[in-house]
Amino acid sequence: MSAEWIITSPLDMHLHLRQDAMLRAVAPVSAQQFAGAVIMPNLVPPVTTIERLVSYREEILDACSDEIFEPYMTLFFRDYSGAELAAAREHIIGIKLYPEGVTTNSAGGARDVKAFAHVFSSMQELGIPLLVHGETHGFVMDREREFMATYQWLAETFPRLIIIMEHITTLEAVTMLDRYENLHATITLHHLLLTLDDMAGGLLNPHLFCKPLLKRPEDREALQQAVLTGHSKVMFGSDSAPHPVSAKECCGCAAGVFTSPVSLSMLAEFFDRHHARDKFQGFISDHARSIYGISPIAKRYALKKDPWVVPARYESVVPLMGGTTLNWSARPVI
Amino acid sequence: MSAEWIITSPLDMHLHLRQDAMLRAVAPVSAQQFAGAVIMPNLVPPVTTIERLVSYREEILDACSDEIFEPYMTLFFRDYSGAELAAAREHIIGIKLYPEGVTTNSAGGARDVKAFAHVFSSMQELGIPLLVHGETHGFVMDREREFMATYQWLAETFPRLIIIMEHITTLEAVTMLDRYENLHATITLHHLLLTLDDMAGGLLNPHLFCKPLLKRPEDREALQQAVLTGHSKVMFGSDSAPHPVSAKECCGCAAGVFTSPVSLSMLAEFFDRHHARDKFQGFISDHARSIYGISPIAKRYALKKDPWVVPARYESVVPLMGGTTLNWSARPVI
Repeated sequence: MSAEWIITSPLDMHLHLRQDAMLRAVAPVSAQQFAGAVIMPNLVPPVTTIERLVSYREEILDACSDEIFEPYMTLFFRDYSGAELAAAREHIIGIKLYPEGVTTNSAGGARDVKAFAHVFSSMQELGIPLLVHGETHGFVMDREREFMATYQWLAETFPRLIIIMEHITTLEAVTMLDRYENLHATITLHHLLLTLDDMAGGLLNPHLFCKPLLKRPEDREALQQAVLTGHSKVMFGSDSAPHPVSAKECCGCAAGVFTSPVSLSMLAEFFDRHHARDKFQGFISDHARSIYGISPIAKRYALKKDPWVVPARYESVVPLMGGTTLNWSARPVI
Repeated sequence: MSAEWIITSPLDMHLHLRQDAMLRAVAPVSAQQFAGAVIMPNLVPPVTTIERLVSYREEILDACSDEIFEPYMTLFFRDYSGAELAAAREHIIGIKLYPEGVTTNSAGGARDVKAFAHVFSSMQELGIPLLVHGETHGFVMDREREFMATYQWLAETFPRLIIIMEHITTLEAVTMLDRYENLHATITLHHLLLTLDDMAGGLLNPHLFCKPLLKRPEDREALQQAVLTGHSKVMFGSDSAPHPVSAKECCGCAAGVFTSPVSLSMLAEFFDRHHARDKFQGFISDHARSIYGISPIAKRYALKKDPWVVPARYESVVPLMGGTTLNWSARPVI
């Protein structure tokens, strides 16, 4: 094996950048590591108008003005009219659907997905992808499995709608991918590498608390198999979700893992360890280009075994593996 | 239904009292609520000699000198000789077996349970009960299920050994109870009332992090059925395990829930709500008397619908339901 290999235009197809000071702290970290990212709209209040979306995009570009970086914007799903969708189309890469109350800032989400068939129908006609946080309100380890029926309904009822099952975590979701041509998925770094054991098997690590919750070993195994075999419907989406340390090491700790600084490094190690370097480019960029029909900014990164220490904090945020040494570095090739 | 009912000599058949300042903070709380308790030996270092056990017992009695309270002492399982066991017999209610490293202060536990057949054999002959923390080192949600084979081996190989499956949490453990006459079990307040949803279904609540981890709804249902039908092999054991708040609201949070102050109150509400008041006396005292052959101190408590606010802290320890209002009170009848 050569000492290093190159990836082009890495994309993070599921990213939370938050607002204001937090945005300014974390956006440059993603901009350094990625050519672009799909930006989640669950702000307070959520991004539900083009005006808000355009100004949020400006804030993001301002926050990472030292880097060339493409924020692919999303609207927060609501009962949009056909005219609104038509007007939004050129500004967005998709619309993100949250069932009501399933994760951070999703209180304004959809209560009954099937009540919005007219919106899905318009999105299908306009070619606007639907990005879905696929969890029910059931028992925390079963929520994604229980949502499979909704994915099935969406996939069958709107066969030309591009549907992304966001941050999938279970064997059942991987299986569902192959049942419907119009279903695709993102997978996070943490669900690819960790299980509930890492969060709660020894001492409790609140920094690994996320929604969907980390799952069982056989679920992780299914995700790894999909990624390592180069499944073309699977994209990287970090779901990197910063919270200040005060909201993590406390009594009612918020859900989210900040993985932007370590994603490329840890993924490089993962693909190298599994002798699957040739599958990294597809997962980190090419599958997303093909699924969404996008042409990302040209950026090249060299992946090399070159240990570095992850900063313990990024401003107030503790990153995954903060303070520890990672073996692989990802450096821009000028 | 009458407004109040009486229980006599409530026993907590699984209790952690710790040492020094923590012992002095929490022991009186148990002494006020219970006639006696089985005291766990996982101190640092663990209680493995009679001298240590006798002095620990004195410390406990000193700490709750305002109340009549019987600490039923246990030794930490190790390779005891027959002579040691014979000498220990009159001082102990049983010996507590921890697989190595499964919970707080269990680093000195047993690596291979079957290597200690000679000790179990001596305990059987001497009539010393074996109390077991039944978890493997597998995936955190499977550890108790995986330990069932070891319970089976113990129950079959030593058919006259009294074996207590401590703090059972799963449907499989409840089922196992009925397969072998010499198997018994304790059930905690938190595993009886809560599931993993309560700890990690919304925001993360580190105060509900415990070992064994909270389980699935169908597991809780099996525990509730056993308790509400008055299963005579099932005893209350709180596994109340105080940690200072600094070890709970932090990055590597310790496992344990402090339930001593609220156990009688919350159990009273549970039995009343399920129209099973008549089953409370067995669960809280009579089954233990019969299984262990003990005659506890006579103490009577009146259970009454009389709301009270749980203190937010006991010294440095946050109790279960701290700061909230409970509907039922348990007051000593003089």
